[in-house]
Amino acid sequence: MVWGWVTNFFTYETTKSVVVKSWLVGIINRVVQVLIITYFVGWVFIHEKAYQVSDTGIESSIMTKVKGFGYHQDQLMDVADFIFPQQGAAVFCIMTKLIITENQFQGKCAENGKGYSCNTDTDCEQHLGSILTNGRITGACLHGGDMSKGQCEVEGWCPVENDSIEMDPMVDVENFTIFIKNSIRFPLFNITRGNFPSNMTSEEIKKCKYNTETNPFCPIFQVGDILKYTGQNVAGLAKKGGEIGINIEWKCNLDLDIEYCVPKYAFTRLDAPFAKNAVSQGFNFRFAKYFKTQNGTEYRALHKAFAIRFDVLVTGKAGKFNTIPTLINLVAAFTSIGLGTVLCDLILLNFLKGAEQYKAKKFEEVSEAQIEASLAPSPSSQISIKEGMKSSYDSGAHSLATADQPV
Amino acid sequence: MVWGWVTNFFTYETTKSVVVKSWLVGIINRVVQVLIITYFVGWVFIHEKAYQVSDTGIESSIMTKVKGFGYHQDQLMDVADFIFPQQGAAVFCIMTKLIITENQFQGKCAENGKGYSCNTDTDCEQHLGSILTNGRITGACLHGGDMSKGQCEVEGWCPVENDSIEMDPMVDVENFTIFIKNSIRFPLFNITRGNFPSNMTSEEIKKCKYNTETNPFCPIFQVGDILKYTGQNVAGLAKKGGEIGINIEWKCNLDLDIEYCVPKYAFTRLDAPFAKNAVSQGFNFRFAKYFKTQNGTEYRALHKAFAIRFDVLVTGKAGKFNTIPTLINLVAAFTSIGLGTVLCDLILLNFLKGAEQYKAKKFEEVSEAQIEASLAPSPSSQISIKEGMKSSYDSGAHSLATADQPV
Amino acid sequence: MVWGWVTNFFTYETTKSVVVKSWLVGIINRVVQVLIITYFVGWVFIHEKAYQVSDTGIESSIMTKVKGFGYHQDQLMDVADFIFPQQGAAVFCIMTKLIITENQFQGKCAENGKGYSCNTDTDCEQHLGSILTNGRITGACLHGGDMSKGQCEVEGWCPVENDSIEMDPMVDVENFTIFIKNSIRFPLFNITRGNFPSNMTSEEIKKCKYNTETNPFCPIFQVGDILKYTGQNVAGLAKKGGEIGINIEWKCNLDLDIEYCVPKYAFTRLDAPFAKNAVSQGFNFRFAKYFKTQNGTEYRALHKAFAIRFDVLVTGKAGKFNTIPTLINLVAAFTSIGLGTVLCDLILLNFLKGAEQYKAKKFEEVSEAQIEASLAPSPSSQISIKEGMKSSYDSGAHSLATADQPV
Repeated sequence: MVWGWVTNFFTYETTKSVVVKSWLVGIINRVVQVLIITYFVGWVFIHEKAYQVSDTGIESSIMTKVKGFGYHQDQLMDVADFIFPQQGAAVFCIMTKLIITENQFQGKCAENGKGYSCNTDTDCEQHLGSILTNGRITGACLHGGDMSKGQCEVEGWCPVENDSIEMDPMVDVENFTIFIKNSIRFPLFNITRGNFPSNMTSEEIKKCKYNTETNPFCPIFQVGDILKYTGQNVAGLAKKGGEIGINIEWKCNLDLDIEYCVPKYAFTRLDAPFAKNAVSQGFNFRFAKYFKTQNGTEYRALHKAFAIRFDVLVTGKAGKFNTIPTLINLVAAFTSIGLGTVLCDLILLNFLKGAEQYKAKKFEEVSEAQIEASLAPSPSSQISIKEGMKSSYDSGAHSLATADQPV
Repeated sequence: MVWGWVTNFFTYETTKSVVVKSWLVGIINRVVQVLIITYFVGWVFIHEKAYQVSDTGIESSIMTKVKGFGYHQDQLMDVADFIFPQQGAAVFCIMTKLIITENQFQGKCAENGKGYSCNTDTDCEQHLGSILTNGRITGACLHGGDMSKGQCEVEGWCPVENDSIEMDPMVDVENFTIFIKNSIRFPLFNITRGNFPSNMTSEEIKKCKYNTETNPFCPIFQVGDILKYTGQNVAGLAKKGGEIGINIEWKCNLDLDIEYCVPKYAFTRLDAPFAKNAVSQGFNFRFAKYFKTQNGTEYRALHKAFAIRFDVLVTGKAGKFNTIPTLINLVAAFTSIGLGTVLCDLILLNFLKGAEQYKAKKFEEVSEAQIEASLAPSPSSQISIKEGMKSSYDSGAHSLATADQPV
Repeated sequence: MVWGWVTNFFTYETTKSVVVKSWLVGIINRVVQVLIITYFVGWVFIHEKAYQVSDTGIESSIMTKVKGFGYHQDQLMDVADFIFPQQGAAVFCIMTKLIITENQFQGKCAENGKGYSCNTDTDCEQHLGSILTNGRITGACLHGGDMSKGQCEVEGWCPVENDSIEMDPMVDVENFTIFIKNSIRFPLFNITRGNFPSNMTSEEIKKCKYNTETNPFCPIFQVGDILKYTGQNVAGLAKKGGEIGINIEWKCNLDLDIEYCVPKYAFTRLDAPFAKNAVSQGFNFRFAKYFKTQNGTEYRALHKAFAIRFDVLVTGKAGKFNTIPTLINLVAAFTSIGLGTVLCDLILLNFLKGAEQYKAKKFEEVSEAQIEASLAPSPSSQISIKEGMKSSYDSGAHSLATADQPV
């Protein structure tokens, strides 16, 4: 009993096949198989690297350092003056134009701008609660001496800023250099890389200047070059400010030597997607320096800074051989090769001369009627079947001792 | 010889099938197939978009600008006073309450707080080395005049801060507006998008105000609205500070028109996961403004700032049709349809009337004994087999000229 | 007609199989199947969790707070003095050494450094346009009184900085503590987690100190401990500055209880990948404090700050059961089991005794010649075939009424 179960278990089941010796179908079959194999090998495995698992959840750290100095309103400014924030972050601004309103004290004074000119207090009351002014509108209209038209009064830091002044920006910015140190880690593979080659000496790094063609791994970028790569005009950008993206892209195939895992730099104007809206072009922000008079009253110098903001953006993708995607794709490949038979079967069984004969060879029919007939009339034959067979109920290997019967 | 190999190569091998004409199994077979197809088409392909490859390693740049002003301790503060950092970064703070300790000079003075009251120097020596004080504990106990109880002496910036003062926060913060400019790039597809529609004019953007229902694409957010969406109380948040997350979520189906790739905003209280711990509720930090006396001695005004910190967090996921996931899922789908036969075979060969007859039809047994028997007794038949066949050793197409033999 | 179509549709087609009762092939077959199942269950499903879909595009928010104070040049500095930026961001610097150049006014003065010593103006003209100086080289050589050698003149903030001064850094930094609050969200699963357990009380958090072994969930880190974990020397780092990464890694299996989704901290020296280049070791930056004289002239104190920069980097990966990867891998598993037959067929049909007999059993040949022969000579038999069959053209179930013919 157990022995029977064991012998039945260790049997091998394989499909019975019909081999068709037909030139047409044979050639179609092989051509389809070759096409499928070519597709999988060429596109799926070689081009798309479907045998790799990839990691895009990177860990990146950026340090920047700007060097240079420039004239602004006859003052020579250096990095401590025009870089904000100063600690060398991934996002930093180089201020190129500063509208400075010196000696602002808390108090009341006239708002500037045509929109706030007034004849009576009523003209000003409509602006009450506005947050677009330089201070809180009090609702009073200030008439300076004999002026026919007055200006609305505001409360806050006085005198108010007049940002319509024209002045020359610091165009020296194009000679500044930016040094970028970027270290990146792919946590899935525990691989850490830096953005300049390990065989580059300290001397080489200090002297080099990035160039897409001739020096693609130098980590020192001249601002003028960056603006040129993005197609921007130095004078315009220095005047109105702007946002420049320095994209560092890491695409690493970790199946190759780690030395091939190098960064690729690209430069873009970040507000490009907003170009159509013509809104908020340029980039500016306000900050203040605070001072105290001798008697302890605080006053400030308000700065409206037009700046070029640089965003160093890092993206990374690393791929490495892994059994799971390889296996899934291999199985998909093998199964796909089998799908070629669908086409060949269609041709063989429908369009070929002698299709019906092929069908007769491929398909063997068994209907309920037949089965019932074989069960009902001759009980002796039923018994002989039952006696002559050792059946297994294991789904993997069914066997039946029917060798003595013509099939 | 070569010709024989070629003819054997260009043959087509297909499985021999048994067609069972039984209503029960036939219907079960079709129902199972329909269920599998429905699942794949409905869930895997339509709902889960398994035909797409997706990119979550986004490149995002954020620019923010706050407008507004408010009263704090009878002073009118504007953006240059209460925004930190000032350059419009993705993470910025709006200070709502400032405890200012003016005119701090380096020196020695009494620490404040009940914990540091003392009778003798011994009471203070236990605090030596503490880093929770306002300065370094010297170990001395200062008795101010006729006071019965003294305070421990500290060395550092004097006088020390007393942050237990009660004061009104700047509640005007709820009227402030935040303008957010976000540009996002999916490096895998090289698609760049901005967070407001390209057909929105500059005028529309300036005037609009974000509302989840009526104006979901306006990039200007009123602080009061944001707090309302997160269920926070303006007065409480302004007093203790807090951290608010502005989540911008991009879920893009790049198989559709690019105009459907739009952001979705959500607002959360970021310290929500820490609510149970009741630790470090609110948000505050310290900074100092530095001044110099006429004779050049530096002094400072220490600010303990309670602020609402806004973190603009961007997540993105873009999907686009790609042949590899499509193919893998298609192959999985086709193969799964075939898995229906496992169930039908089980029923057919075990539970159906005439199961043994079906088994006899499906399985053809060949045992070692039979093979040996056919090899041993009649050597003539063995020779006839060997002569009568042209065998191919290609695993893809085995053929055997056995047509003249009854199988 | 329709009825015939319906009965043909509801048929069930299954492959006809040959069951080989051979110990050798049977055992090989089962062993191969067991190996494949073991691999899929053990590696693919249990180890690699191929039944999960994973999310790496996390949304993370970080708040930091440093506590401590230290002596620098006989001044006691507190957090408001040495932390930059002050608002508790994910990237912050603790300044450990400050080279302060007090009372700089705009003007002209001598550059310092041996490289800029000169005899005549010609010696200085070679430096014109250099951006590595402390100001713009005017081209003049300044001879101070009776000095034989002069120094080149620069225009800018005077006097210029002399950063070659030796001074003791603030080594007290090792006693400082850093409190880190990190909340993380996996947008795909909408799960939010904080970096300390919800059952930790406020008191416990305030008193604890992180330790890899004994206290791995405490969010308070002592700087000295962090430097020890990265193998760094406090004195060296405080002198030259450096960049330390605090990596918070979230690896969450969301099929388990959410309480098992906890952070893991790791500490690295971020400039490690650049160690070989010996370039730009350490970390420093420059900033200025601005003052005004009584008559309103601005002057500044330039600070060259050597700092330890801490980057809190968060990476996260969450996996959760999902039908699609499960299904694809299950189908791959089932299909792979079938691949075992390739090996067994190879053995059975080529290397086993009686291989030719097995071939004869497995393959049934049909050649064009046979089909033509059966079509041509007896037209009567052709008619009888046509009459006796009801064929279906559905690719899923072909049936042919050929039961009356011996196959």
